[in-house]
Amino acid sequence: MPPFSGRTIHFGAFNVTSQVFHTSPHSFALVNLKPLLPGHILVSSLRVKPFLSDLSHEELSDLFLTVTRVQKTLKRLYKADAFNIAVQDGEAAGQSVKHVHCHVIPRSKGDAGGEDKVHEWLEGEEGDVGKHQSEVEGSERKVGEWAKDEERKSRTMEVMEKEVVWLKEEMEKDAQGETESNTGKL
Amino acid sequence: MPPFSGRTIHFGAFNVTSQVFHTSPHSFALVNLKPLLPGHILVSSLRVKPFLSDLSHEELSDLFLTVTRVQKTLKRLYKADAFNIAVQDGEAAGQSVKHVHCHVIPRSKGDAGGEDKVHEWLEGEEGDVGKHQSEVEGSERKVGEWAKDEERKSRTMEVMEKEVVWLKEEMEKDAQGETESNTGKL
Repeated sequence: MPPFSGRTIHFGAFNVTSQVFHTSPHSFALVNLKPLLPGHILVSSLRVKPFLSDLSHEELSDLFLTVTRVQKTLKRLYKADAFNIAVQDGEAAGQSVKHVHCHVIPRSKGDAGGEDKVHEWLEGEEGDVGKHQSEVEGSERKVGEWAKDEERKSRTMEVMEKEVVWLKEEMEKDAQGETESNTGKL
Repeated sequence: MPPFSGRTIHFGAFNVTSQVFHTSPHSFALVNLKPLLPGHILVSSLRVKPFLSDLSHEELSDLFLTVTRVQKTLKRLYKADAFNIAVQDGEAAGQSVKHVHCHVIPRSKGDAGGEDKVHEWLEGEEGDVGKHQSEVEGSERKVGEWAKDEERKSRTMEVMEKEVVWLKEEMEKDAQGETESNTGKL
């Protein structure tokens, strides 16, 4: 079962409700079908709008606040030293789904993404999230229903579902900590 | 003369006052010594802090609001279809100056940055803004004083100074338009 069963969340034309592990007033965070590196996730606006400049100040602010909240949890879980944060803001910049989304990619020294690899993947077929969504999402697929056409894809969905539940729980722990410390900082 | 002559602005350990074409309550925008593509600029926090997570909510919000304000002007001036927006949040992600900065790179269909080039440059030596700053900025250089060691660099500085003045004026035109329309949108 997706963790936000009462709500349908769209990423462009795709129903990604099952991939969402966090929501905020104006944004949501979803796991990737094919992460470039472990912990590679996307943060997107709840409103389906193509460009950063289409968002209100409040939505924009909420989007990047959500990015930093997710970073906090990913940093802890993946022992990340750093992050690549990237928005392909329009098709000519490599955007494959016409909906504002920010790539959040945990990095550590000496990881497989070094020497340009992360960025190479991001712009290449490996980072084409639209293509990946198309592969698993038929037009008749319903919320929470997995694509059944290939064993590989089903397995990915199973792994992904576990990741969603795990990240959701871990995000909640950090949110709790944030409320308790109440420092006004991230 | 730098456009913000009464104020010294630092990018990491570098005094970049001469490169700054826009300031906001918590952020500033500076031209690049070696832009990857025409119009490639950086938006940084006024406080010298290495990570996005070091910024307060207000600073974080202001940083990305500044990014979209700069995008508006660059889009018009460079006839951009899209933008690459990228933060290398930590050394393991390719950050060369330990100070939060967001790359804003105008893109258009069929430009020289296509097929991974922008991202390749960004992570390679071409995008090493720290190295570029080091090349032109001696420890004894004062605000507004150009490096004099190479003709190429002096020329770059001259071109850069013109770009700073031009962008500053054009940013002010758009800010004026925004105040007049008062839509609450970007």
